[in-house]
Amino acid sequence: MDYERIFSDAISAVKAEGRYRVFADIVRRRGEFPRADRFGAGDDGRPLGDNARPVTVWCSNDYLGMGQHETVLRAMHEALDHCGAGAGGTRNIAGTNHYHVMLEQELADLHGKEAALLFTSGYISNEATLSTLARLLPGCIVFSDQFNHASMIQGVRQSGAEKHIFRHNDLEHLEDLLAAADPARPKLVAFESVYSMDGDIAPIGAICDLAQKYGAMTYLDEVHAVGLYGPRGGGIADRDGVMHRLDVIEGTLGKAFGVMGGYIAASQALVDVVRSYASGFIFTTALAPVLAAGALASVRHLKNSGIERQKHQKQAALLKQKLADAGLPVMPSESHIVPLMVGDPVMTKHVTDYLLDEFAIYVQPINYPTVPRGTERLRLTPGPMHSEAMMDDLVSALGIIWERLKLRRAA
Amino acid sequence: MDYERIFSDAISAVKAEGRYRVFADIVRRRGEFPRADRFGAGDDGRPLGDNARPVTVWCSNDYLGMGQHETVLRAMHEALDHCGAGAGGTRNIAGTNHYHVMLEQELADLHGKEAALLFTSGYISNEATLSTLARLLPGCIVFSDQFNHASMIQGVRQSGAEKHIFRHNDLEHLEDLLAAADPARPKLVAFESVYSMDGDIAPIGAICDLAQKYGAMTYLDEVHAVGLYGPRGGGIADRDGVMHRLDVIEGTLGKAFGVMGGYIAASQALVDVVRSYASGFIFTTALAPVLAAGALASVRHLKNSGIERQKHQKQAALLKQKLADAGLPVMPSESHIVPLMVGDPVMTKHVTDYLLDEFAIYVQPINYPTVPRGTERLRLTPGPMHSEAMMDDLVSALGIIWERLKLRRAA
Ligand SMILES: Cc1ncc(COP(=O)(O)O)c(C=O)c1O
Ligand SMILES: Cc1ncc(COP(=O)(O)O)c(C=O)c1O
Repeated sequence: MDYERIFSDAISAVKAEGRYRVFADIVRRRGEFPRADRFGAGDDGRPLGDNARPVTVWCSNDYLGMGQHETVLRAMHEALDHCGAGAGGTRNIAGTNHYHVMLEQELADLHGKEAALLFTSGYISNEATLSTLARLLPGCIVFSDQFNHASMIQGVRQSGAEKHIFRHNDLEHLEDLLAAADPARPKLVAFESVYSMDGDIAPIGAICDLAQKYGAMTYLDEVHAVGLYGPRGGGIADRDGVMHRLDVIEGTLGKAFGVMGGYIAASQALVDVVRSYASGFIFTTALAPVLAAGALASVRHLKNSGIERQKHQKQAALLKQKLADAGLPVMPSESHIVPLMVGDPVMTKHVTDYLLDEFAIYVQPINYPTVPRGTERLRLTPGPMHSEAMMDDLVSALGIIWERLKLRRAA
Repeated sequence: MDYERIFSDAISAVKAEGRYRVFADIVRRRGEFPRADRFGAGDDGRPLGDNARPVTVWCSNDYLGMGQHETVLRAMHEALDHCGAGAGGTRNIAGTNHYHVMLEQELADLHGKEAALLFTSGYISNEATLSTLARLLPGCIVFSDQFNHASMIQGVRQSGAEKHIFRHNDLEHLEDLLAAADPARPKLVAFESVYSMDGDIAPIGAICDLAQKYGAMTYLDEVHAVGLYGPRGGGIADRDGVMHRLDVIEGTLGKAFGVMGGYIAASQALVDVVRSYASGFIFTTALAPVLAAGALASVRHLKNSGIERQKHQKQAALLKQKLADAGLPVMPSESHIVPLMVGDPVMTKHVTDYLLDEFAIYVQPINYPTVPRGTERLRLTPGPMHSEAMMDDLVSALGIIWERLKLRRAA
């Protein structure tokens, strides 16, 4: 059996569609975000600092630049000095560190819940929690938004539970499905607050109303909202004053908080059951204390400081305005995410290649399976560290490229 | 529907079996491994350094103490200063950092493979790779060792492939199953080198012989062997000179390398296909550069230094001898892992509670689902930093407790 051939063919299929992914090899410059140094093809063997070319990054999910915040980095340096590099074990076997305990308390408080539980990533927090909850509730039916993240889809699939997909943010459809289900069976509604590729926002309160009416639990992924919305950065549910209506709030430490890791916040019993039953929580080395220490500093900082959030929103609004003024097809977005539709994988790659090679602007093309085929796009993430001059450079470069490639402009 | 009640009941079931897990909250003392400071029940709210009591840790998987190695920590401090805390994106979207590229090259070289791929954990590397490979090979049959790790089991399950379980390390049974399968179908044999709870070692070469005879691919988890065996720390396959016979070698950066993260090493085409298709690789924030930098330093160090490995083996042999001499039921183990059988969850917990409270010795009880019911045990992991005096303290404490609880001694 020629296994290599099968794998090569699978790669050729991706290439034929024009969506083969080339990773940009960058090193962000601490203290100078959103600037970074870029290594090119053939630079793999070069050591850090050698032959790197400067770029401006426009697609990072370190939305507020907390990854270079002094308080965060100081906490990380201290943790390294204090207890070393890794946790040295799973949470159960020698791997629980006091930073984990403190961070879990901080996150529970952030979301107004009794308890929280850390995971190595947001991906694993979704997968492990959803698969465990839906499996432990006998006969559970999961109601899942059509655009839910891959990690939620995996979790639901692994649970083996019956799944009903409701049209994206469509309350009527969700109610139809809930009403049609056996009232005696356990139910779980799983959805996100900010959808990361379109930038639209779920009607959380109204979904909770429906869940309550039909006796369903609610599971909310706030990965693209924690740190960014609400008076203390608790997310959209914090902003909307509905955190108490959600059974599980899931978040990441790797985007607005600028570090790495994931978590859930929920009742004591729910957290304890996931802690005790979830394979993806139990059988893996715990989050490195250095990451937990950094995340703790970041969460605490953003609980008490709103300035980053204000600046972030201002920048997003400004960039949207500038793109619209230039006649570029910026998609309507209620959030900080600024998507620019192209609609074809090959063209999208051309745009981003030109941006990088001619203008030293780094924007990654977004293609299938991250977004549906035919909706390939640029996804811009302006932050407090992008200057207005950087925005003008970006918009002008895009204008030139749009012209050159004869791309569709805004209506 | 009373969801809270269902969760509480699930927890009560675990408690009734005597296997409810209480995490020890510790902070290892960098520079003084295996010493740590322990926080007790009710100390959750206390800041670091407050009310901590010293303990000696005997159950960490930071086997060589690389988590406090100066070279590793220096690299991590530098990475923090250079590029900040987190990666700021998925590998495809702004999250690939030059440390990732360098580390992947280093790991490919360590295992004599064309390429390597990083994941956020060893757990995810197993799950993502196995689920992707077995799914992409149409009609694939997976042959899986009975004692394979939870993360491998998850990966195989997710692939939807037909699975045949062979008795642990049983070549005859594996051959029976291979011979009975349709020769035309793709096959994958998945197994570990060092089994982490018993400390026994797979006959890798002989398994490769069978795989070759029946045209199967081979997938080896070396999580408990990388850094520890072989002239350059490539694992048991390195020691046995059979790395080239394996299609995939999987490892962790969180145990002997002392940091956090996971990886596979394989052919260029295989790595590319996992990179391009695996949900658990694609849809998650990349490993923080600070971790990649630390792991890179650790892998490089252990490639060139054998002294840690020698000391490690010497310590393991010495501890086994001392336990045997004291008549304690140390299980036969070919590796650095030293399991001490108790055979009951409640008794095991008593032993470890006494060790902790009376002797300031921390060993976590190992119970179901980590090991089969009825084989509950202590699992000791002596390392280069444990002194002979510490060993004597441990053996003497165990002797006293064995006496007190009237536990079974060695035959
Ligand atoms: C909606 C959503 N949920 C979960 C995740 C996973 O979080 P993490 O990056 O921490 O694994 C992501 C992206 O990475 C996401 O976009
Ligand atoms: C055999 C085996 N494979 C994989 C893993 C997972 O590795 P990691 O801790 O890096 O997630 C573990 C333990 O954690 C393990 O024991």
